[in-house]
Amino acid sequence: MKFSCDQQKLSKALNIVSRAVTSRTTMPVLKGILLEVREGKLTMSASDLDISIQNTIDVDSPEDGSVIVMAKLFGDIIRKLPSTDVKVICDDEYNVTVKCMNSNFKIMGMSADEFPSINTLEEESRFAEFDKDVLRSMIEKTSFAASIDESRGIITGVLIEIENDQINMVAIDGYRMAINRKNKVNPQQKKIIVSARTLTDIGRILGETDSSEKTGTLYLSSKKAVLRMDNVQAEMKLMEGEFIGYRDIIPRESKIIMKVNRGMLLESIERASLLSRAGKNNLIRMNIQDTIMTLTSNSDEGNVREEIPVTKEGEDLTIGFNAQYVIDVLKAVEDDEVKMLFNTPVNPCLIQPLSGDEYEYLVLPVRIN
Amino acid sequence: MKFSCDQQKLSKALNIVSRAVTSRTTMPVLKGILLEVREGKLTMSASDLDISIQNTIDVDSPEDGSVIVMAKLFGDIIRKLPSTDVKVICDDEYNVTVKCMNSNFKIMGMSADEFPSINTLEEESRFAEFDKDVLRSMIEKTSFAASIDESRGIITGVLIEIENDQINMVAIDGYRMAINRKNKVNPQQKKIIVSARTLTDIGRILGETDSSEKTGTLYLSSKKAVLRMDNVQAEMKLMEGEFIGYRDIIPRESKIIMKVNRGMLLESIERASLLSRAGKNNLIRMNIQDTIMTLTSNSDEGNVREEIPVTKEGEDLTIGFNAQYVIDVLKAVEDDEVKMLFNTPVNPCLIQPLSGDEYEYLVLPVRIN
Repeated sequence: MKFSCDQQKLSKALNIVSRAVTSRTTMPVLKGILLEVREGKLTMSASDLDISIQNTIDVDSPEDGSVIVMAKLFGDIIRKLPSTDVKVICDDEYNVTVKCMNSNFKIMGMSADEFPSINTLEEESRFAEFDKDVLRSMIEKTSFAASIDESRGIITGVLIEIENDQINMVAIDGYRMAINRKNKVNPQQKKIIVSARTLTDIGRILGETDSSEKTGTLYLSSKKAVLRMDNVQAEMKLMEGEFIGYRDIIPRESKIIMKVNRGMLLESIERASLLSRAGKNNLIRMNIQDTIMTLTSNSDEGNVREEIPVTKEGEDLTIGFNAQYVIDVLKAVEDDEVKMLFNTPVNPCLIQPLSGDEYEYLVLPVRIN
Repeated sequence: MKFSCDQQKLSKALNIVSRAVTSRTTMPVLKGILLEVREGKLTMSASDLDISIQNTIDVDSPEDGSVIVMAKLFGDIIRKLPSTDVKVICDDEYNVTVKCMNSNFKIMGMSADEFPSINTLEEESRFAEFDKDVLRSMIEKTSFAASIDESRGIITGVLIEIENDQINMVAIDGYRMAINRKNKVNPQQKKIIVSARTLTDIGRILGETDSSEKTGTLYLSSKKAVLRMDNVQAEMKLMEGEFIGYRDIIPRESKIIMKVNRGMLLESIERASLLSRAGKNNLIRMNIQDTIMTLTSNSDEGNVREEIPVTKEGEDLTIGFNAQYVIDVLKAVEDDEVKMLFNTPVNPCLIQPLSGDEYEYLVLPVRIN
């Protein structure tokens, strides 16, 4: 195998593929990146068995072939080389030579046969086109709310519902729920569940791929989802099982509807939480009275009171929350103002846009005395 | 005690003082910052007993007084407040109230009496003026070479020699030495030794103080050194004992003198060290032959060869180094080219500017076969 390629181009492509390399493995091959050269194209592949990423770039290739190189070492070498043409050569014993200007590296490779197979795409599994920025935004606005406790099974995943006229993404961890909806006409319907951790990686990759290409393609089979964007192909294992019936959890009606400036509320809660972190619940108390919401919090170190102007319909209310859950929501939203809907101090709070239903966040309250 | 002050101004001043706050203490008072208001001035003080920092700013102060507040909590509160006027009030029970816009914090303070005393400056201890940027640069170019092993005593410190016509700063850790010299006429002579860790803090503070003031003043007594710059006063404990007779270690003559491009050598060594990190010595091999220096390094993972053009007087040479020691030197220096002086593969290497003696670095070689 022989190829040569611009250092910057190779380094950037390796960075994307490296997201699928895991260090937490006893299988040496999963610490590696598979390099495959065929007819002027270099395909780099990495897999941690949950997610597999392939990136294909054009190279000058006098000789086809393939080899596995250690991802960290090879990536560090390429990153530190000068910004000019890099030559990579692999002999029959899997000794890999990297040459660039006056630098000459020889590193040990492994036979490509040992790499886990990544299936080739079948055209019949082509499912839908997607807008890269929209997908990335939906991931960022939901996946933080999935459970990070690996023993919790299906709720460590994010539900992606592809309906006739819209796409819904839903994450839930037992204390809160995030829903994001986008209008989109889809020829087919489907519900899939993907690990939130994997999806977060996908979100980062979407931000790193060539921004001149606006759309990608989703391929679906019974066990996996594959995203194609530019030269990158990311394959995710689908989670098996039934997701929580999330629609039943959303309160049908709300007795108290409050509108508030998102930025102001976010800053106030962040300050109030300076004094609630000590306690294990990160508890803040919201007292909504007429046109003023008073946030209070206290610990052994002291107490804090924050006042925020609001507009409200319905009764006055005092309710407690884990500050971090509300902060996460307010950070994920971009609107200047949001609507908060309540019923009683023990019923969940809904956070929505002033109009429309693009997002919906549900946060369970903490019982206060 | 009552004062009010702009949030940004107060936050910036607290950041500087916080450098002296230690979390590794069982004395609660050392986790605090002393606030003292007197006649329109707020003095903030913190001390970890090795270094004490005071910062004085103008405030609006209807009532003088003093209190100790927990540095982290108070700093976090001030930093997160909106950018406007902040009021701080302390009652007779050391309850501290912080008010700003619609925020109202009440935190517990402590009596100022418990704070370790920071001596007031006596005019007769005024020793010399210094240029802040020059001092900062000298610290950055030497203190990294001091020993970080607390059991090594005096060589965890940096020697500052104030002579009639110049200032020398020297650090040494048994494997390498850093010397930095600046011409400066000083009325008095003195040798002092200050902990490298403390000096590194001072370097950072120098970068954070008001850049419109170019100079500061050094005060010296038998046990401590005090730097005054702008409104900041930093007091350092002097280390006791005799520093290494560093002049005797510098080789008098060198049989081999080599000139090399600093940036090119730095990049090559950084690449070569990718393959030397695995071994415990971080060993790289330099082979200097006529006009080419070849760097090689190897580990279980592979090997590397880098070639760099040099100009050389004297014999050819093969010598080994801990790559990190050479990298540290080349990063501390700013010149485009440097001079490296050698004698044999077991004698130290000197790194100097092409002309002059502003800096001198000595690195011990690693024995190679």
